[in-house]
Amino acid sequence: MIVLPESVTPNEIYRLLTACVIPRPIAWVTTLAEDGTINAAPFSFFNAVSSDPPIVMISVERRMGEPKDTARNIHTSREFVVNIVNEQLAEKMNTTAGNYPRTTSEIELAGLSLLPGVKLRTPRIGESPISLECSVLQWTELGKGPTDLIFGEVLSFHIRDDVFAGGKMNFKELKAIGRLAGNTYCRTTD
Amino acid sequence: MIVLPESVTPNEIYRLLTACVIPRPIAWVTTLAEDGTINAAPFSFFNAVSSDPPIVMISVERRMGEPKDTARNIHTSREFVVNIVNEQLAEKMNTTAGNYPRTTSEIELAGLSLLPGVKLRTPRIGESPISLECSVLQWTELGKGPTDLIFGEVLSFHIRDDVFAGGKMNFKELKAIGRLAGNTYCRTTD
Repeated sequence: MIVLPESVTPNEIYRLLTACVIPRPIAWVTTLAEDGTINAAPFSFFNAVSSDPPIVMISVERRMGEPKDTARNIHTSREFVVNIVNEQLAEKMNTTAGNYPRTTSEIELAGLSLLPGVKLRTPRIGESPISLECSVLQWTELGKGPTDLIFGEVLSFHIRDDVFAGGKMNFKELKAIGRLAGNTYCRTTD
Repeated sequence: MIVLPESVTPNEIYRLLTACVIPRPIAWVTTLAEDGTINAAPFSFFNAVSSDPPIVMISVERRMGEPKDTARNIHTSREFVVNIVNEQLAEKMNTTAGNYPRTTSEIELAGLSLLPGVKLRTPRIGESPISLECSVLQWTELGKGPTDLIFGEVLSFHIRDDVFAGGKMNFKELKAIGRLAGNTYCRTTD
């Protein structure tokens, strides 16, 4: 089957693209709003892009042309925390994916706890096995919409002791999940 | 455990970053050299970044400051094909990951076949269940090295009929793999 983007709707393209580029890592991003609210939302257009210095990228698509809370908060604070999602946290992550008013903290809704980092004012999710504190390095807009492409330099890695032992990651213990199309996910333990 | 990048070596940071940001999708990229050689190499600093139009990103780290064949070829041709890797192709993909002279075609080494696309001069890998023909949209350099960050607009999706049926992707049939740290991979069928 050959599909040309110009022959189908943007919605169909989104579904096709997210079904072809798999499995995608998930950045469960915490950000600090100007009024002090802590927002949390998951993004799977996310990856490492460079290791020296360590740099990650998250792509935040707009909603009806409006930047999402995550992009808006990062734009002001110039910082964000990427929290990694494991199997145990999948349901709470889904709760934070909803569309809530700006002043609603998805952290409270999902019953999550927050812990301070060592480099930023933005806290990390206490239940997350790994958190990366990131400072904005570069910001690009791409495509219609447009999409906000945010590059962050990782200033610190927080890793739970039981998932990292003897100098390497224990993937069977970490149980990170990856995103496939729609609401389907995959394990990383097999 | 808290790791600060400035306190460890670039090599350790690479290992840590690739162990934290998982699972990563794999772009098995075919490119066309000026002399007509077809190169193939896998990259896991890869993801979709926007859907309207469909845009993907691949990050190609340099080797001792020199762009890899993939980046060099794309720089000249302004195009590339992302081929998706499934469990059956994992070993052949590993063969193409080696460091070969510029005029060596990894396609021949791995015993792969090539098929023409519909939009570009660069062919796709015949054995791959999904191939995306991409035209360069933007190019950014990031970090030390620096890293070549290449954004491509997807001009066509080639999807094998048996992995896409009834309007949706059959992940159990597709059997795509994702990259973890080092030489470890995960399935997407669970």
